[in-house]
Amino acid sequence: MSISKNQLKLITSLSQKKYRQKHKLFVAEGVKVVNELLSSSFKVVTLFCTEDFLSDVSKDYIITISETDLKKISNLKTPNKVLGLFQMPEDKPLHNKGLIVALDDINDPGNLGTIIRLCDWFGVSELICSTKTVDCYNQKVVQASMGSLTRISIHYVDLNKYLTEINLPTFIADMDGVNVYSNPLPKEAVLIMGNEANGVSDKIKDSVSNKIAIPRFGETQETESLNVATATAILLSEFKRNCL
Amino acid sequence: MSISKNQLKLITSLSQKKYRQKHKLFVAEGVKVVNELLSSSFKVVTLFCTEDFLSDVSKDYIITISETDLKKISNLKTPNKVLGLFQMPEDKPLHNKGLIVALDDINDPGNLGTIIRLCDWFGVSELICSTKTVDCYNQKVVQASMGSLTRISIHYVDLNKYLTEINLPTFIADMDGVNVYSNPLPKEAVLIMGNEANGVSDKIKDSVSNKIAIPRFGETQETESLNVATATAILLSEFKRNCL
Repeated sequence: MSISKNQLKLITSLSQKKYRQKHKLFVAEGVKVVNELLSSSFKVVTLFCTEDFLSDVSKDYIITISETDLKKISNLKTPNKVLGLFQMPEDKPLHNKGLIVALDDINDPGNLGTIIRLCDWFGVSELICSTKTVDCYNQKVVQASMGSLTRISIHYVDLNKYLTEINLPTFIADMDGVNVYSNPLPKEAVLIMGNEANGVSDKIKDSVSNKIAIPRFGETQETESLNVATATAILLSEFKRNCL
Repeated sequence: MSISKNQLKLITSLSQKKYRQKHKLFVAEGVKVVNELLSSSFKVVTLFCTEDFLSDVSKDYIITISETDLKKISNLKTPNKVLGLFQMPEDKPLHNKGLIVALDDINDPGNLGTIIRLCDWFGVSELICSTKTVDCYNQKVVQASMGSLTRISIHYVDLNKYLTEINLPTFIADMDGVNVYSNPLPKEAVLIMGNEANGVSDKIKDSVSNKIAIPRFGETQETESLNVATATAILLSEFKRNCL
């Protein structure tokens, strides 16, 4: 089968957030990511795949296409057998417990994808994003999260309001904070990570109770600050290392 | 001034390792990275820059070019005022002390760049790379390392031979290893990180004394393993957290 003009138009439109929100659909590509989504609670709408993707092509949501057509719709450098349209899941209620990660205007899709994977690894089930944080159904985020997207409950909220209302200790990563290695960290908390260029915004800085820093061990003071995903990895490790 | 055909040919050739090694030159781009290199011990050969890069253009290694010409030679999506040719530094002698990171066939330039930045942050002055590890003068590595390249001593060696000769405890990151949080780690050691797809090779696994694992806290076993740069961040933090 080939791809219809309307399908092509729909797929192309989903690169924009407003159309993803209008249709409540997003795109995922490649064997690994698509299989993770298929085995999750996420609902598939259409799978465009080349003949070698599936032996069982009886499902009515499957459209077998040529390599050439896959190339047309793919956003990957090397298209990998399948592109799927999936439904965005319904919003889940907030749990407000355990260790929670909150993101203040993270811009880079790769960083958000990596942080979603880290939440999955470290058993953080709730990820709170400021409304200006990059959309988690952006295709680059979907690809970078490697299926972890299906296991994390992600919420876009007014972060300032959220933080004033939540009844948990709040921590931000801040160069002027206390050495993170010096005191034990609580099991339940909100860890807030800031924008790649500007860090956590002043408004939010003022409302949080704890500032923690990953000390710099190198001799020079010139070292660029740690990337936000890297810093998140180290801080989640610190929060969790005493929990086993 | 405009760029000569020979200059264009030289710059283009430096995207290949064999020509970088032949000329002992590499390319760095953008205001931040180039300024870091200029203020280091690395030697600049030529700077191709647009008029707004420098007020002082009296240096004989500076060639002022147009935005159009910069676009021609740039590998960045958004060329940023300057592209520099720099000399590769001479090989330094191995120190063989302190905390050392060793990489077994890391392929991805972004991962190597991030690991170089992490070494800089955590005061690891020596980075050992297997001969098949991506070249640290690959332009993507140079850009991702954000100037940290100038502060780390990087050596490409026969990793197996290096590890049999070095007189320090050796650690690999391995899923079957001991929980990294359970025992204190030594101040002097070699931390070996493996290839993105295959991990540390069997030959090297057999020769190391310690296997350590970052435990998975998430409930499902489906989570993709941590990215090698992320895992390096967490492990360096563990090695260093008791050193302050």
